Amino acid sequence: MKINNILVVSPMYKEIKSLIEKDDIHKDFRYLTEDEMKQEDLLWADAFVSFNVKSSYDFSHIKWVHSLGAGVDRFLFKRDWQEDVLLTRTICSFGQRIAEYCLSYILKDVQLHDHFHALQLKRNWGPITPKLISDQKVMIYGTGEIGQMTAKVLTGLGVDVYGVSLSGKEKDYFKEVMTVDSHFSQINEMNYLINTLPLTEQTENLFSKNIFNRLSSAGFINVGRGATVDEEALLRALYDNHLKFAVLDVFTHEPLPENHRFWNHPNIHITPHISAVTTPEEGVNCFLETLKNIEENKPLDNEVNVKKGY
Amino acid sequence: MKINNILVVSPMYKEIKSLIEKDDIHKDFRYLTEDEMKQEDLLWADAFVSFNVKSSYDFSHIKWVHSLGAGVDRFLFKRDWQEDVLLTRTICSFGQRIAEYCLSYILKDVQLHDHFHALQLKRNWGPITPKLISDQKVMIYGTGEIGQMTAKVLTGLGVDVYGVSLSGKEKDYFKEVMTVDSHFSQINEMNYLINTLPLTEQTENLFSKNIFNRLSSAGFINVGRGATVDEEALLRALYDNHLKFAVLDVFTHEPLPENHRFWNHPNIHITPHISAVTTPEEGVNCFLETLKNIEENKPLDNEVNVKKGY
Repeated sequence: MKINNILVVSPMYKEIKSLIEKDDIHKDFRYLTEDEMKQEDLLWADAFVSFNVKSSYDFSHIKWVHSLGAGVDRFLFKRDWQEDVLLTRTICSFGQRIAEYCLSYILKDVQLHDHFHALQLKRNWGPITPKLISDQKVMIYGTGEIGQMTAKVLTGLGVDVYGVSLSGKEKDYFKEVMTVDSHFSQINEMNYLINTLPLTEQTENLFSKNIFNRLSSAGFINVGRGATVDEEALLRALYDNHLKFAVLDVFTHEPLPENHRFWNHPNIHITPHISAVTTPEEGVNCFLETLKNIEENKPLDNEVNVKKGY
Repeated sequence: MKINNILVVSPMYKEIKSLIEKDDIHKDFRYLTEDEMKQEDLLWADAFVSFNVKSSYDFSHIKWVHSLGAGVDRFLFKRDWQEDVLLTRTICSFGQRIAEYCLSYILKDVQLHDHFHALQLKRNWGPITPKLISDQKVMIYGTGEIGQMTAKVLTGLGVDVYGVSLSGKEKDYFKEVMTVDSHFSQINEMNYLINTLPLTEQTENLFSKNIFNRLSSAGFINVGRGATVDEEALLRALYDNHLKFAVLDVFTHEPLPENHRFWNHPNIHITPHISAVTTPEEGVNCFLETLKNIEENKPLDNEVNVKKGY
């Protein structure tokens, strides 16, 4: 595929521009914010590089769309996609970042950080022994790059890690991989659930009482997509102690609305979608590598299967 | 060495008794609390198993003393020890426990837990990107079993780990091991310092302004012994931002006195000496294994070098 005109649309376009210009790329670029972009830019461009697409525009001239994020639901979820348009996504240090994020919150729980902090406020010396992380069982939903890197890090610390995927296909670093249908019998043994799944028609509201009701005081960490979770069911599961706590980095509506009930729930820990941020450096590196592979007709490890939606 | 009469002195002696009795050991045991113990028990016993010794008693009849903890300063620090008495200590999952403790507090800092918690209380959506733990540098004081296991866990996550020991001898999992005298030139680059050192004449007040003044906003984690730290210098270093925070599991006086200034310092995190607790199971297993090795004249990997003090 021959790419000449590249349209980069991002609030960070100045930083992206200066990074791209460090490389000696002989292409025509236009760098714009979303507000500045016009239909004529899309008619000019062969390639479109952004975090999302505005549905009101005509993208039919574009041959290649590159997502600056790992998730592509903003491009595909409940939208039509023109099948001959190549869609690629950013894969970088997401796996490592998300693994460290999840590990930090599991260790916070195992090591009783909140408990000891509360004791300290009361000047209370109350020894109890933290459990070992190697005695914990974790179920990771999604066995792709991010799920697998998280499994690798946890397995390295002796955790028993189970996986859930569409196919149920065995993968390295998982003790066992199950399908959604086949995993119900084992989730009641889990200490922690980690969701890394993309948002698709199959994963929307997957985390409902159908899963939560089988848990016994487990921790739930969501680094996938907010809309995979039934929010009412999550609150109910916390109330009923099926869930001990939830760590949420992603939400159906982001930023999380100021009046949302999650904000002041004592057992919900909120982070503002930071578990897998693309730094401009990483986004640009991944884009440039993808561009090179496309021009050299090399296989792409970051091509999105548009039918599957991820 | 032949051991027949074994005196176990511990507040947990009932639990220890029931665990020892699971094994078919043909020895005479006495199980007592410290208050119940009398001089005649020490004259009866060949072996003494406890967390510490009361200096007012005559221990000269005892051939073997086994410490139920990893630290033996309560036996040796500023005390005379009769050289022909064997001293052994408990080595079990301490390394793993302490490694997980240290890792949890480094990740808490890197992943900005407190920052995001403060934002949540204000219903404030303020994304910033956590650093990767693999970009951090850690100096571990003490390259024995505990220091080395901590180095192993951190190295496994990509951390650059440096060591400080008496000998400066290279050890696995450390990028470099230095002596106290030679390590000063490098500590200003460190993001975190972890102390695992025992209390000896050489380590008393080691962490003074001589070390702290060279740091630039580092985190300090003490899982060794409290008296290795000059408390005034620690408070000063926090005030001057040589230290960003301190996580303290050990103190000169334990329990930490209720009126101590550490309790309400916003950047001191206190845990009640729980980073390397001996569970009764582990303590008993280690004691029984040591007993077996002694009777079979096998080498002991947990014999204390009484001259060195650890």
